[in-house]
Amino acid sequence: MSKIVVDMMGGDLGPEAAKEGVRSFKTLHPETELILVGDPKALADMEGYHIVPSTSVVKMDAGALDALRDKSSSMSLAIKTVIDEKADAVVSCGSTGAFLTMASLKLKKIKGVLRPALITSFPTVIKGKSVTILDIGASTENSAEELAQFALMGSLYSEFVNGVHSPKVALLANGSEAGKGTEAGKAAYTLIKQDSKIDFVGNREARDVMSGDLDCVVSDGYSGNVLLKATEGTAKAMSFLMKKAFKKNILTMLGYLFAKGGIKEMAHTMDYKAVGGALLLGVNGAAIKAHGNCDGYAWKSALCVADKIAKAHLVEKIEKRITNE
Amino acid sequence: MSKIVVDMMGGDLGPEAAKEGVRSFKTLHPETELILVGDPKALADMEGYHIVPSTSVVKMDAGALDALRDKSSSMSLAIKTVIDEKADAVVSCGSTGAFLTMASLKLKKIKGVLRPALITSFPTVIKGKSVTILDIGASTENSAEELAQFALMGSLYSEFVNGVHSPKVALLANGSEAGKGTEAGKAAYTLIKQDSKIDFVGNREARDVMSGDLDCVVSDGYSGNVLLKATEGTAKAMSFLMKKAFKKNILTMLGYLFAKGGIKEMAHTMDYKAVGGALLLGVNGAAIKAHGNCDGYAWKSALCVADKIAKAHLVEKIEKRITNE
Repeated sequence: MSKIVVDMMGGDLGPEAAKEGVRSFKTLHPETELILVGDPKALADMEGYHIVPSTSVVKMDAGALDALRDKSSSMSLAIKTVIDEKADAVVSCGSTGAFLTMASLKLKKIKGVLRPALITSFPTVIKGKSVTILDIGASTENSAEELAQFALMGSLYSEFVNGVHSPKVALLANGSEAGKGTEAGKAAYTLIKQDSKIDFVGNREARDVMSGDLDCVVSDGYSGNVLLKATEGTAKAMSFLMKKAFKKNILTMLGYLFAKGGIKEMAHTMDYKAVGGALLLGVNGAAIKAHGNCDGYAWKSALCVADKIAKAHLVEKIEKRITNE
Repeated sequence: MSKIVVDMMGGDLGPEAAKEGVRSFKTLHPETELILVGDPKALADMEGYHIVPSTSVVKMDAGALDALRDKSSSMSLAIKTVIDEKADAVVSCGSTGAFLTMASLKLKKIKGVLRPALITSFPTVIKGKSVTILDIGASTENSAEELAQFALMGSLYSEFVNGVHSPKVALLANGSEAGKGTEAGKAAYTLIKQDSKIDFVGNREARDVMSGDLDCVVSDGYSGNVLLKATEGTAKAMSFLMKKAFKKNILTMLGYLFAKGGIKEMAHTMDYKAVGGALLLGVNGAAIKAHGNCDGYAWKSALCVADKIAKAHLVEKIEKRITNE
């Protein structure tokens, strides 16, 4: 049976959104054990759930050090509960820096893993198909060996969490030819190519990520972060311009009314809330960081990702693949 | 008087687009001397222009080495003409790799410049305002000193080519706080901060590039390339989805007809053809690489950028600033 710990207190929308997400998730997966960490008063209406009481909340802008000092916060207790209760995963939408640092330090790396990586899913132009990217920022610089392990972890994630048979894995580079990339990237290319269990398609440029041809893209943490945020920034800029375009005059406003159905479908394809945040892969127990402003729906998505990871025994699979080599 | 050499033969659309661009430019700037390099037959109708005859064309997919070997190509002769005729700039829309390698090798670096950088302009959400980014791929990895010189060159470019008084320069990083970034980036932060002639606003994330708050963003070549291509890929994906959204049914198609004016204005804001390609900064004579599929309008824009650089004496200004320090 899978067991998931939930930090109910972080995030901009507070425990109400978390509770809504937990209830929706539970309807879908009554078999999964959930442990809710939070202020007992705020969780008073969650009868029948296993509740671990906490007395404080890590602020959204808290630094990692401040957060580490406060042992009674819901975030700190949630991570501790993963260890105490041998849980499979922990979900929080509190401060990203605090949560990731805490999870990296306390959950310990899977045996054989050099560095944990932060992985997320991007939408693609193909409806319902996403592409996973790692590392998007757990590290800044990475060695070739670390990048090769990211390829392995990303491939397993795509296969067992996203359900892709023989996922196509690419290495992010400044050109699609072999021989492109940083020094570490070039050495990683050779290492990944040697791994017969990875369907490695070679180097790909950042412009190909959302094309729908790839299942997983491997990058060092710094460039992966640039990729993530450039995509976010461009999508934001284009949405802004699109809204402006529709507000130009009475005709364009009328146009919006007619086109609304299509536009909403497009917005849904690009919706990050449907893909469940980001998660730290490579530690004992997946640590899922849902978006800070996530609502009930986004909470449910994040819990579903945690559940898939748990049911797929992803941590064990990673350890087995890495130590066998 | 400014003098610009034009490689008329490269690009997907061939010399006809180049000729159209040259004629439009000449109407705007009759005072600028243009030297056109190309097949005399193809340029037979360009009476009154200074023509340097060439006998071959570098293929769009040519490698840098192949291109370097062919001394009679329009690209090779165009770069040679910059040196022979002491021209200010050269414009080509041929193979990017070939053109940049050739320009780097033959035009030589400006005195004091450690590494040339490839600079380009991105649109922002503010109509008519662009932001310049360098390096977007001349190098892969860069030292702190190189990054600091990019800040200086980018600031001068924004001021004298884009006409921005006291341009705001930011360093690309994986967080906006000081102390974020790669090791080289962190050291560059300190160096740039010490330069009182640069209005340095500190670290910025990739998501802030198109916000309209910045005039110039400095990055190592690898991450700058990721930024450029992630932006391009996202814009392409969203345009694709938008078109699909409008084609959904008869109502959405009707919506497009009404909203067309606004949508076209949005497309124009995002139009890379209006910003004039990319250029190699830091060599003696700016080398401007127009987009491979550029039409007459894009050619004209690229020639206007070349002309501004020439008239601003940008090369001299860079040398003066760098050697004075």
